[in-house]
Amino acid sequence: MDERSALRRLAAALPAAGDDAAVVDGLVVTTDMLHEATDFPAGTTRYTAGWRSVGASLSDVAAMGADATAAVAAYAAPSLVEEELDAFVEGAVDVCDAVGAEYVGGDLDTGTEFTVASTALGETDAPVRRSGAEPGNVVCVTGTVGRTAAALRAFEADDVDRGNDLFRFPPRVAAGQALAPHATAMMDSSDGLARSLHQLAEASEVGFDVSWDRIPVHDAVEEYATDAADRKRMATGVGEDFELVCALPRASLGDARAASPVPLSAIGTVTEASEGVRMDGEPLADEGYTHE
Amino acid sequence: MDERSALRRLAAALPAAGDDAAVVDGLVVTTDMLHEATDFPAGTTRYTAGWRSVGASLSDVAAMGADATAAVAAYAAPSLVEEELDAFVEGAVDVCDAVGAEYVGGDLDTGTEFTVASTALGETDAPVRRSGAEPGNVVCVTGTVGRTAAALRAFEADDVDRGNDLFRFPPRVAAGQALAPHATAMMDSSDGLARSLHQLAEASEVGFDVSWDRIPVHDAVEEYATDAADRKRMATGVGEDFELVCALPRASLGDARAASPVPLSAIGTVTEASEGVRMDGEPLADEGYTHE
Repeated sequence: MDERSALRRLAAALPAAGDDAAVVDGLVVTTDMLHEATDFPAGTTRYTAGWRSVGASLSDVAAMGADATAAVAAYAAPSLVEEELDAFVEGAVDVCDAVGAEYVGGDLDTGTEFTVASTALGETDAPVRRSGAEPGNVVCVTGTVGRTAAALRAFEADDVDRGNDLFRFPPRVAAGQALAPHATAMMDSSDGLARSLHQLAEASEVGFDVSWDRIPVHDAVEEYATDAADRKRMATGVGEDFELVCALPRASLGDARAASPVPLSAIGTVTEASEGVRMDGEPLADEGYTHE
Repeated sequence: MDERSALRRLAAALPAAGDDAAVVDGLVVTTDMLHEATDFPAGTTRYTAGWRSVGASLSDVAAMGADATAAVAAYAAPSLVEEELDAFVEGAVDVCDAVGAEYVGGDLDTGTEFTVASTALGETDAPVRRSGAEPGNVVCVTGTVGRTAAALRAFEADDVDRGNDLFRFPPRVAAGQALAPHATAMMDSSDGLARSLHQLAEASEVGFDVSWDRIPVHDAVEEYATDAADRKRMATGVGEDFELVCALPRASLGDARAASPVPLSAIGTVTEASEGVRMDGEPLADEGYTHE
């Protein structure tokens, strides 16, 4: 059973689960676990790990269109080193500060692998779900995609500072709140743009047709991509990007853009489910970040 | 740096941390990470793991005297097996049901070691801290101690059903709320009774003098203890018991007992800090559950 099948199973058993975050009486809660082997390439600092792990949960709060209020993290490592722990907490505090949330501590433990479990809390009266996109809507993405794909190349190339810098993404909490009144469906691109579109399509029972030349690609992708095909794969098929992907009525696009504190790119349209997920008219593979 | 030093460091950096749970605007949040090697002996079922890991976080909510509202868990294992995951979720849901909280899902991941990170949420207008105990107060404990020590012996003896049964402790959420109006200080005994008394003593700047013959010991300890010294160690020095330890004014003891849905034993008195932590007049070693 791969992670997506398992998550689907979990969602079926639990009515409040199955979106980026659960919402109980207006309280938003989401949790994520990250591991050294799969999530923190060699060279990732503990400061970056603190930022990124807590940021991943804040991004899930953002994806509900909610205000982020607080976060906690549980930290396990083979040994607890003072400087590493301080750096981790500093990163966690800084990413919370960046979105106006409070980092309120956590748990510590020894474990065989460096592992972080972060939980973020938020508040919203009107959560935006993955379901709700309608044919004719515009599909949009905040910021630029491919940032994590570029970061992974930077780490591979031993360009550690650049890798860490790219890894510390800004969670789109303010953008999520600005888009919430307009969006019919929203999620974050933590599994990559292509996979996110497939997940939105499944939850909303629609299709998508996006245009490659409208997809905003991070500058760093250009630096590391080996050719045009590689550039496309880095931008759409790697994931862990933490931008917001949303659908909204075409008439709202102007207002949504005006409200959003980050650039909002209209990358295509919502189609009927029978059309599937397409880029430039061709089927877009459901590729991205999946733990097998 | 052992876990306690690290937690102290974390608490110093974060004003909201340093107790069983953080409290932000009346919202209680706490997170815990548990690992197969240290927390789930061979024979622990996934149902029990779900119950126990989520229960540990609910116990932290209880220790603040708060109502438990919701919980999430992140689950990592070398492979995601359907039956194991179903059993885990069932245990998590059942322990939440037992205290009137809602289990709202979580995250799934593959990792080298079976690891669970659970987060519980609660609400309270008047959290009970570890600080606040005053000389002359009575020190009390809910239920009975030594349950986990007995469970570990059961697992060692291959009495797996008994071990699992003992491992599925009832989180004292209702008791915590009943005691909150009376308690001057409270925490759960997740590090063992002796260590909990030392932690309360440190936070409240007091001492304790408890009597061994007043400490309520779980029946199963009797079954597995090899002699009188072993019985004492199992009851006070092993930990992970998840009972509540609190201090309250002597005049409130009757009311607190009447309010508590579980037996409340008065095991001694709060003394001056200079007296230290004593049992039957002798220093009680600060022994218990510490990850080195």
